[in-house]
Amino acid sequence: MSKRPLIKIAKTAGFCFGVKRAVKLANEAPAKYSGCSISTLGPIIHNPQVVNQLAGKGVKPIGLDSIPDSGVAIVRSHGITRKLARKLDERSALKLVDATCPFVRRAQKIVAEMSRAGYQVIIIGEPEHPEVTGLISYGEPANTRVVSSVEDIPGDFFSSRKPSRIALLAQTTQSQQIYNEIAAALLTIKGELRCFNTICTATSDRQSEALQLAKECDCMIIIGGRNSANTNRLYELSRKCQADSYHIETVDELNPDWFADKQTIGISAGASTPQWLIDEVVRKLENGN
Amino acid sequence: MSKRPLIKIAKTAGFCFGVKRAVKLANEAPAKYSGCSISTLGPIIHNPQVVNQLAGKGVKPIGLDSIPDSGVAIVRSHGITRKLARKLDERSALKLVDATCPFVRRAQKIVAEMSRAGYQVIIIGEPEHPEVTGLISYGEPANTRVVSSVEDIPGDFFSSRKPSRIALLAQTTQSQQIYNEIAAALLTIKGELRCFNTICTATSDRQSEALQLAKECDCMIIIGGRNSANTNRLYELSRKCQADSYHIETVDELNPDWFADKQTIGISAGASTPQWLIDEVVRKLENGN
Repeated sequence: MSKRPLIKIAKTAGFCFGVKRAVKLANEAPAKYSGCSISTLGPIIHNPQVVNQLAGKGVKPIGLDSIPDSGVAIVRSHGITRKLARKLDERSALKLVDATCPFVRRAQKIVAEMSRAGYQVIIIGEPEHPEVTGLISYGEPANTRVVSSVEDIPGDFFSSRKPSRIALLAQTTQSQQIYNEIAAALLTIKGELRCFNTICTATSDRQSEALQLAKECDCMIIIGGRNSANTNRLYELSRKCQADSYHIETVDELNPDWFADKQTIGISAGASTPQWLIDEVVRKLENGN
Repeated sequence: MSKRPLIKIAKTAGFCFGVKRAVKLANEAPAKYSGCSISTLGPIIHNPQVVNQLAGKGVKPIGLDSIPDSGVAIVRSHGITRKLARKLDERSALKLVDATCPFVRRAQKIVAEMSRAGYQVIIIGEPEHPEVTGLISYGEPANTRVVSSVEDIPGDFFSSRKPSRIALLAQTTQSQQIYNEIAAALLTIKGELRCFNTICTATSDRQSEALQLAKECDCMIIIGGRNSANTNRLYELSRKCQADSYHIETVDELNPDWFADKQTIGISAGASTPQWLIDEVVRKLENGN
C-alpha cells in the first residue's frame, strides 16, 4: 500500500459569515416560533444537504410564487427582489425573518442609490443567480444592467466622447479577477467610474487560498453544492492551477483512483458548505482510500 | 541626393483647447487693457517661444511671489493654488484674467469636493508641476496626496481590511497608461474606488496618434518646450515604439544626420506648441535636409 498523502485543508473553507448567520436564524426558528408554519423563500443557502437537514426540522423551502399569508417566512442569504420585499410587507399576518447577508444588503443599497443618482449601474454577476436578480431589482431598468464579461458591456459605452458616470459593483461571491478585468476595461471611459468592490472578504480570501493550495498540491478537492455559484467558481479557479481538481458535493463521490500516487491533497469548500461535510471528506481521506 | 522622405504630421499635434484659449486671452489683453501693466503669473504656457512673443507685446511672466497690487494679472492655463487665488481676490485694484484651462478647473473642483466628502484623494501627476501644485491645494492636506507610480501609494492602503473610500484623478495631461496601472492596482482595495478620468481628450488622442505614427514611421520628431511635461511624455511614448525619436523645441535643432536613409518621418507636438513652430519644421524637412 502506498504512503498516505498529506492533506492540506484551506483555513477559509466553508461557511462564511452571511451563511452562518442565515443557517443559525433558520435553525433557531422552530423553537422561537413553535406552532407556526415556517418556510424559507427558496433554499436558504445553495447546499442541498443543509436544506435537507432543515427540512427535517420543519423548515422547508417554498417557491417564490407561493408565499403563504401567515406563519413565518425566512428570506434567504441571497436576498430577494424589491418587488417581492414589498409584497411580503403587505402580508400583515406573515412574520418575516430576514436572513439576507448584510454584504448583499449593502450591495442592494448601492444599486438603489447609484441608479437613483443617475449613474449607469453595472452589476458583475450571473444574470440568473438569485442574489443578482435581487440586486438588479433595486435599480431603475433604464440604467441598471448585469454583465458577466467585458463583451457584455455595450459598445457605445466605449465609443461615446461624452463623459459618462458609471457605478460598478459585483455579486458578493464574484471572482476578483473578473471584477478587475471589467473595471480595467471601463477605466478608459471619459468621466467617472465609481467602483464598489462588493466582493466579500471571505470570498476573495477563499479564492486566494484555494489558488495557493492548488499550486502546492498534486490534487485538489472542492466541496460544495452543484448549485452553488461560488463553489463552481472556486473549482474553476483551482483547475486553472491544478488539472487534477475535483468538485464533489459529499464524501460518497470521492474516487480512490484520483489519489493514486498523489503526495499532497488540497481541500477547500464553498461558502455554503457546512463543516460536517468537510470533516467527512477529511476523515475518509485520512483513513485511507 | 537621396529621395525625399514622406512626412506624416499628426492631426492632433499642437495647441489644445485650453492652451488656445489661454494664448488668445493673453494676446487680446494689451488692446483690451491698454495703458495697464499686464503680467502672467508664471509662464502662460510651457513654451518659451510663445512666452517670448507675448513678452514682445508687453505681456510678461512674473514670479508667484511678486504679485503686483494693480494692473492686470493673467492666471495661466495650469491654474494656481487655492491660497494664491484667495490672495489675488484680496487685491481689489488688481484686474484678474483667468486663463485656467476649464478641464484643470474641473479637476480642482473634484479634488475639493472629494476631499471635503472624506475620500482619500489620490492625484496622479508630477508633484512639482504647476497644475499639480494647484490641484493638491484644493484638498485637505490630511487626505490628499500626489503619486507618480504604484510604488508611491502607501502600503497600508492595500493591507487595510477596513473598507476605504478613495477618489482617483489625474493631471489633465497624464498618460492613460499610468492612470490605468495605478487604478488597476487600487481595484483590489475593499470599499469604494471613485475614478475620475480627468485626462483631457486632446491629450489621450494626441498620445494614441503619436504611438500609431511612431509604429508606422522610420523616425519621429516631437516638437515642444523642454519644460512641457506633456511634450516630454509624448516623446517618451514615441521612443518606446520608435528608437529614432527626437525631441526638439525649434527648427534650428533639426539634424540632417537623423534622416539619412529614412523613408517616412512622423511629426507630433505638445499641447503648448504653436502651429508656426510645427510649420517651420515641416517646411525645412520638405525643402530637403
